[in-house]
Amino acid sequence: MAGTVTVPGANVPSTPLLKDELDIVIPTIRNLDFLEMWRPFFQPYHLIIVQDGDPTKTIKVPEGFDYELYNRNDINRILGPKASCISFKDSACRCFGYMVSKKKYIYTIDDDCFVAKDPSGKDINALEQHIKNLLSPSTPFFFNTLYDPYREGADFVRGYPFSLREGAHTAVSHGLWLNIPDYDAPTQLVKPKERNERYVDAVMTIPNGTLFPMCGMNLAFDRDLIGPAMYFGLMGDGQPIGRYDDMWAGWCVKVICDHLSLGVKTGLPYIWHSKASNPFVNLKKEYKGIFWQEDIIPFFQNVTIPKECDTVQKCYIYLSGQVKEKLGKIDPYFVKLADSLVFTSPSK
Amino acid sequence: MAGTVTVPGANVPSTPLLKDELDIVIPTIRNLDFLEMWRPFFQPYHLIIVQDGDPTKTIKVPEGFDYELYNRNDINRILGPKASCISFKDSACRCFGYMVSKKKYIYTIDDDCFVAKDPSGKDINALEQHIKNLLSPSTPFFFNTLYDPYREGADFVRGYPFSLREGAHTAVSHGLWLNIPDYDAPTQLVKPKERNERYVDAVMTIPNGTLFPMCGMNLAFDRDLIGPAMYFGLMGDGQPIGRYDDMWAGWCVKVICDHLSLGVKTGLPYIWHSKASNPFVNLKKEYKGIFWQEDIIPFFQNVTIPKECDTVQKCYIYLSGQVKEKLGKIDPYFVKLADSLVFTSPSK
Repeated sequence: MAGTVTVPGANVPSTPLLKDELDIVIPTIRNLDFLEMWRPFFQPYHLIIVQDGDPTKTIKVPEGFDYELYNRNDINRILGPKASCISFKDSACRCFGYMVSKKKYIYTIDDDCFVAKDPSGKDINALEQHIKNLLSPSTPFFFNTLYDPYREGADFVRGYPFSLREGAHTAVSHGLWLNIPDYDAPTQLVKPKERNERYVDAVMTIPNGTLFPMCGMNLAFDRDLIGPAMYFGLMGDGQPIGRYDDMWAGWCVKVICDHLSLGVKTGLPYIWHSKASNPFVNLKKEYKGIFWQEDIIPFFQNVTIPKECDTVQKCYIYLSGQVKEKLGKIDPYFVKLADSLVFTSPSK
Repeated sequence: MAGTVTVPGANVPSTPLLKDELDIVIPTIRNLDFLEMWRPFFQPYHLIIVQDGDPTKTIKVPEGFDYELYNRNDINRILGPKASCISFKDSACRCFGYMVSKKKYIYTIDDDCFVAKDPSGKDINALEQHIKNLLSPSTPFFFNTLYDPYREGADFVRGYPFSLREGAHTAVSHGLWLNIPDYDAPTQLVKPKERNERYVDAVMTIPNGTLFPMCGMNLAFDRDLIGPAMYFGLMGDGQPIGRYDDMWAGWCVKVICDHLSLGVKTGLPYIWHSKASNPFVNLKKEYKGIFWQEDIIPFFQNVTIPKECDTVQKCYIYLSGQVKEKLGKIDPYFVKLADSLVFTSPSK
């Protein structure tokens, strides 16, 4: 097929899936040497690089990749007064990449994530697995004990209602991490040597009505289905909190997916997460989140989006009002956050 | 330790876990040669064998096992007029074993289930894994993306509320099957050659509010916590339906566990399911269940047990009334079933 890039000897399909319909978004503060390892899998795709921190620094991107790069000056110029909605000095800035993308699908990955190996020793094409997850249905309304029923060698088990076997559209594919697990600062401090060595060969749908901690390290989603809710909030520089960007997005995304009968999957693919961030620094960023989440999670567990909200935008605007009303009492930060939810919503 | 049985060379802990607190319940119509393979794991435990079908037939049990055996004559004698609550010619009869047990824990297994091997080729001690599942907490209120957080090498991930990290008591451990998957008759007919070859190295909690198809083939539970709801209904001989015994119990058990904040786990351990039952015979048994479940499942999804019901018994009696009222309209069978739910409940 014309226009596809093939790398000699690389383990990729000759026509990469969704080549022209997916952007890879990478937030970074350093040279993107990690892309060398991903070259066989990522090179056919377009990259959107969001440079965090000092905009005068030059980020080197390995040769042969097709990319656009935005630094803080670009973000300020493009968004004008709304630029304050995009976090600075926090990987939350990645959501600027979702905003400027015109593609249907997004895959986002951190620059300390490398290609993992499956138990047979084969390199895992994480992007290909995410695409499979997104292109096959989810099963949010009833649990299938043999995991993803659409996977080869599996199906719906006895007792699974036939009326639910068409499943739901999949909006989000949440991938996992080998080596350094995604722990909070207290757990990092308590278990500094713990490594995730367990390869669980499963993809599953997170049931309707159940919240989960969405990690932004290795994440894919359908922008058309859920894009407007994939906002990573106000974190980092000038904010009272960090490292809750993906959690915030995950709570919003899940309650909206549940309301709109969309599916969220988790499990495969794994990436190799190479380095643990500093737990002391993390604790400083997280500590407000650690106690705020005890109120935020019940808020999201109990919020009921009205029937009239039949688009992601409408749901998101509604949520924003609820955040202001219910969470604003906890801290003025949530009033500011609620406003930024509205600013970033494309219906405004 | 006095009284424990050790088998030379067998891969069992020297003191089997819960040796005096767990009964193994086996429904059968044939000689129990399958126990030979399980000897290293089961021999220390007491077996309750429920003989289905012709009571004049003699069932041979391999030497060295400690067991009691009940046939239909025994059931009729012991239960008198209530004996009609125990199904005949259906593995649903196994619940008689739960009833006569005086132990806290039950493990039940079908006699066509053998010892499976893990990916390293090691025999899986299914019972030991079930016991681990039952003795460690569940996490029904929030999803942990690294699966069971209490397992070695795993923990709660970033963003998991600290207030929920103590988890809930585990009432049920639902194990899976390698080789012949637990499919319904239509799926068996469509995929006669499908085998489950995927070993998923995970135990997970089925979230609160989510129903699942509970299979009785390889199942353990805490009788003290959920026993009264583990009734396998009216199936087989003289009934309009078969092969929905475990599904029925699973629906009742899950809504009651959800109401009482108890946990239900699924995943490991695997057993090796040796032979597929006849799909044509199964279709005859299942066909009413296949369309009834389209109403039964929404019924269970929507039933709200009142707060006053603070014991399994109270919940079960309440459910029985709802079954009569709401499902009785579908078929008079459900009125009869509702009555048998009350008869089998120990509070009556």
